[in-house]
Amino acid sequence: MHAVIPLYPRFTALDAVGPYTVLAFAPGWTVTFAAAQAGPVTDDRGSLTLAATASFADVPAPDVIVVPGGLGTLDVMEDEALVGWIRRAHEHTRWTTSVCSGSLLLGAAGLLAGAKATTHWAVLDFLANSGAVPVSERVVEHGKIVTAAGVSAGIDMALTLLARAADPVTAQSVQLAIEYDPQPPFTSGSLKTAPEGLAERALALIT
Amino acid sequence: MHAVIPLYPRFTALDAVGPYTVLAFAPGWTVTFAAAQAGPVTDDRGSLTLAATASFADVPAPDVIVVPGGLGTLDVMEDEALVGWIRRAHEHTRWTTSVCSGSLLLGAAGLLAGAKATTHWAVLDFLANSGAVPVSERVVEHGKIVTAAGVSAGIDMALTLLARAADPVTAQSVQLAIEYDPQPPFTSGSLKTAPEGLAERALALIT
Repeated sequence: MHAVIPLYPRFTALDAVGPYTVLAFAPGWTVTFAAAQAGPVTDDRGSLTLAATASFADVPAPDVIVVPGGLGTLDVMEDEALVGWIRRAHEHTRWTTSVCSGSLLLGAAGLLAGAKATTHWAVLDFLANSGAVPVSERVVEHGKIVTAAGVSAGIDMALTLLARAADPVTAQSVQLAIEYDPQPPFTSGSLKTAPEGLAERALALIT
Repeated sequence: MHAVIPLYPRFTALDAVGPYTVLAFAPGWTVTFAAAQAGPVTDDRGSLTLAATASFADVPAPDVIVVPGGLGTLDVMEDEALVGWIRRAHEHTRWTTSVCSGSLLLGAAGLLAGAKATTHWAVLDFLANSGAVPVSERVVEHGKIVTAAGVSAGIDMALTLLARAADPVTAQSVQLAIEYDPQPPFTSGSLKTAPEGLAERALALIT
């Protein structure tokens, strides 16, 4: 199975590397980072640079695509090199997936009309602009389109995807290999559980 | 606060990028990827390359170090460029931390004699060779040394660290910013909860 993760300037690192690590440890999977042109792409903190080893033209027909989000997402909503690739690659995929604001790019590619989908809580309402039906869940499956909530949700999404695309035992094996037995020290990872006033502080970090 | 993440060939991507993302979103923190020489460093799946923007010589006195693990850890246990840097940098740090088999490198640097510490479940017994007291917990704090269990545990570790080094509300804000409300689709992320026989399958993926 060949998964491609498209990169663009100011993506969020964990959006891409969470699912990457899950899928790259799965037996028989290869994962390629691609960009408009092969070469370095820097994240939205300005301090992490990943190498895209392929151009979009090099990988026209992947089995799976995983579109990350990031502070740069809104800047590339009309970038035809990226959005056009997503639209055309989707015709060939078994699964088209996103993490965080990456689902806005699936929407920009015209893939979400009438589809249930999710994204980071900060832009959930914005997702409806593409015709999607926004759902506040961790992972949302709509046919072959699988979308995840913000940043860290890509790990849960990739394990869900692996259970579907391979089998549950493979997904469980990878989960144990990466010791994914999360024990966050606080329960503030969701708007539903975060203390009063925290959303404003969190928004200040990501806008 | 300046955190440095040392890279070496065949590190595990999520070990480094989980804590990176947590710390890089924290206000007032900068995070630098370093290596023996500045330049590209490739992970243990052979398909992710991160740019080290500094050499170890460029960053002799960080406030925090986060040492990732990976399938390449055992190959660099006697690499003085890396292990010597960890040993010397530790003299200056406020916090010296590791993820996964990265704690074996803290041990190789002589930092764990008599210290409670943890690592990936697959090498937990091995950790005692450095004089450490292996503990099967998600995050282990021993003075200024903070070690995490395998791969994904670095996210929990970094949030714990942030609560100590900054304050709990800052850690909670970052947790909400990265929507870290984990909902793994299975409960197989720990030896304590994984189904019978899964450890062998997981080991086959990481050895």
